Amino acid sequence: MQTFGGLTVKDVAREAGVSPATVSRVLNGSARVSPDKVERVREVIERLGYKANPFSKSLLTEDLKTVGVLVPNLRDDFYGVIVNAIERRLLEHGVHMMCSLGHEDALVEEDAVQTFRSRSLNAYILLADLISDEAILELVKDNIPVVLIHRYLPELQHMCVNISNEHGGFIATQHLIELGHTRIAHITGPLNRHHTLGRYTGYMKALQQAGLPVDPALVQSVPGPQWEILQGERMTQRLLSRTRFTALFAYNDWLAIGAMRAVRAAGLRIPEDISIVSFDNRFFTEVTDPPLTGVDFPRETLGVLAADRVIALMNGQDVQMLPDLKPELVVRGSTAAVKKG
Amino acid sequence: MQTFGGLTVKDVAREAGVSPATVSRVLNGSARVSPDKVERVREVIERLGYKANPFSKSLLTEDLKTVGVLVPNLRDDFYGVIVNAIERRLLEHGVHMMCSLGHEDALVEEDAVQTFRSRSLNAYILLADLISDEAILELVKDNIPVVLIHRYLPELQHMCVNISNEHGGFIATQHLIELGHTRIAHITGPLNRHHTLGRYTGYMKALQQAGLPVDPALVQSVPGPQWEILQGERMTQRLLSRTRFTALFAYNDWLAIGAMRAVRAAGLRIPEDISIVSFDNRFFTEVTDPPLTGVDFPRETLGVLAADRVIALMNGQDVQMLPDLKPELVVRGSTAAVKKG
Repeated sequence: MQTFGGLTVKDVAREAGVSPATVSRVLNGSARVSPDKVERVREVIERLGYKANPFSKSLLTEDLKTVGVLVPNLRDDFYGVIVNAIERRLLEHGVHMMCSLGHEDALVEEDAVQTFRSRSLNAYILLADLISDEAILELVKDNIPVVLIHRYLPELQHMCVNISNEHGGFIATQHLIELGHTRIAHITGPLNRHHTLGRYTGYMKALQQAGLPVDPALVQSVPGPQWEILQGERMTQRLLSRTRFTALFAYNDWLAIGAMRAVRAAGLRIPEDISIVSFDNRFFTEVTDPPLTGVDFPRETLGVLAADRVIALMNGQDVQMLPDLKPELVVRGSTAAVKKG
Repeated sequence: MQTFGGLTVKDVAREAGVSPATVSRVLNGSARVSPDKVERVREVIERLGYKANPFSKSLLTEDLKTVGVLVPNLRDDFYGVIVNAIERRLLEHGVHMMCSLGHEDALVEEDAVQTFRSRSLNAYILLADLISDEAILELVKDNIPVVLIHRYLPELQHMCVNISNEHGGFIATQHLIELGHTRIAHITGPLNRHHTLGRYTGYMKALQQAGLPVDPALVQSVPGPQWEILQGERMTQRLLSRTRFTALFAYNDWLAIGAMRAVRAAGLRIPEDISIVSFDNRFFTEVTDPPLTGVDFPRETLGVLAADRVIALMNGQDVQMLPDLKPELVVRGSTAAVKKG
């Protein structure tokens, strides 16, 4: 292993009184740094010295802390945006990131965590539903900081970063109720996961609060965790064939796209005949026809919060439990007031 | 560091005569494995033995090889799909993946590679435009397998995996020429990168081959590597304000979406007044209005090829240079024959 004079970006940043990100920008010749800061950083580097070398600009030593991040997949932009936000935030603190994937498979998740351990990473951020509580508690015994996204363990509550899926399901449904809809369908997945259950619970609570009946014929679950357009299409076809509704709340964007296709294929218009609300606000929902109204999953905020929490834990700070993030509704063209008559 | 009885998924796979992925599925209780294979795997595990432990199912030892993958960002699905494909393929070989981001910043790219080295990863797949050739050649001296995506070094040609951007630009433009268009605009980025230059070269060659003039007024470059909707919109407004055209070829999907907005805002219809061809085929291009015709960037194939190449290099196999992948055109609703008259 090579080290380069023992000088790190963080050392330079501290000495020059600037952020590690600023040091990086100066070393990279970015124009986005004020001339006086450039001057200060250069002076410090010259004074402390570093060796010329293909990697010299990186000033990297063994000291560079690395956080392992585990997410299920990078199939679409959903988890990528979270990882990207985590990484940008860690870099501001001069901390590096390595990401692995868990494939929604308990074994693969455990392998990934085990690899993080075997490579002596300094902390972990886990977005992993299936790894057992027992395994996570075992990890924490190593005294390595762990942050859990989308998961809640009472023993580790100060390490958990979550959004309120229930609040999201509630505001999605309430929006439709406010538009005058009373027959609101919901397509979801298996209700044994806390995301699906949370969104479904919010849907039910909004109906109940408005004094509307919860009709089981209006709820259709995808058979497995198959968040695909085709499944959204099939589930919506089933709903259309067995009951009457003027609005539909989909568990996520892929199911919502499928719902749009099935509604159109049945000769109905969106939003004139059926309003559709989605959840997650992936990039493509802005460019669908019509653009989808949906609950925004605050992916960047979540990533930043998780990074801040892991940095705080790495610095040994005393941290309190975070309140769940409350997602907000983005209203676009796929929802409208119910037709009269 | 803990090891668990020294038994790896690969050991079990070899002994049972199945793939490591099958062993994983059996351990995870997946239904996708035939009963006789389940039986064989279970028998081998029982015979070779492993210790009960929160991580016991992972059977992981220090032996698990890890490949470091570097991509610019995970802002949208573009690089995520490549990383996801690499990871799935590596896993089939019982090899783990860790991914870092380079931010289109030479310094960050070098830091990432340096972190891979300091954590003793076993091989690297780099999708990094800015790290110097010198640094890459230095890396290779460590005798650690390196695969380069989207980059070509003559000394390392057997380690390079590329697509032909020129072929892509050519077929995109040719499609428009075949539809009768003769005034075809192109929005692109700075032409000092090989992707932009390749796609632009293909555009020019298709025009030349058809005997059409290459009119500089029809080409508009984004000022920096800013692949944003807003930039696509602005560049298309400029084109519309200074010249006449019936078709437009956009460097990538984000610019194409911006072009669609500018064309609509000018009171023109797609494809009746202006046909639009995009490049990359991100997921959202299927759900735009109208769905975008575009060159498919074969992201999954590229990821699989890169993974296969790194596995071959790790196994010390003698490999030949790969031909560039030829992207194909996906025709959807945003292109049509030029209006007569």
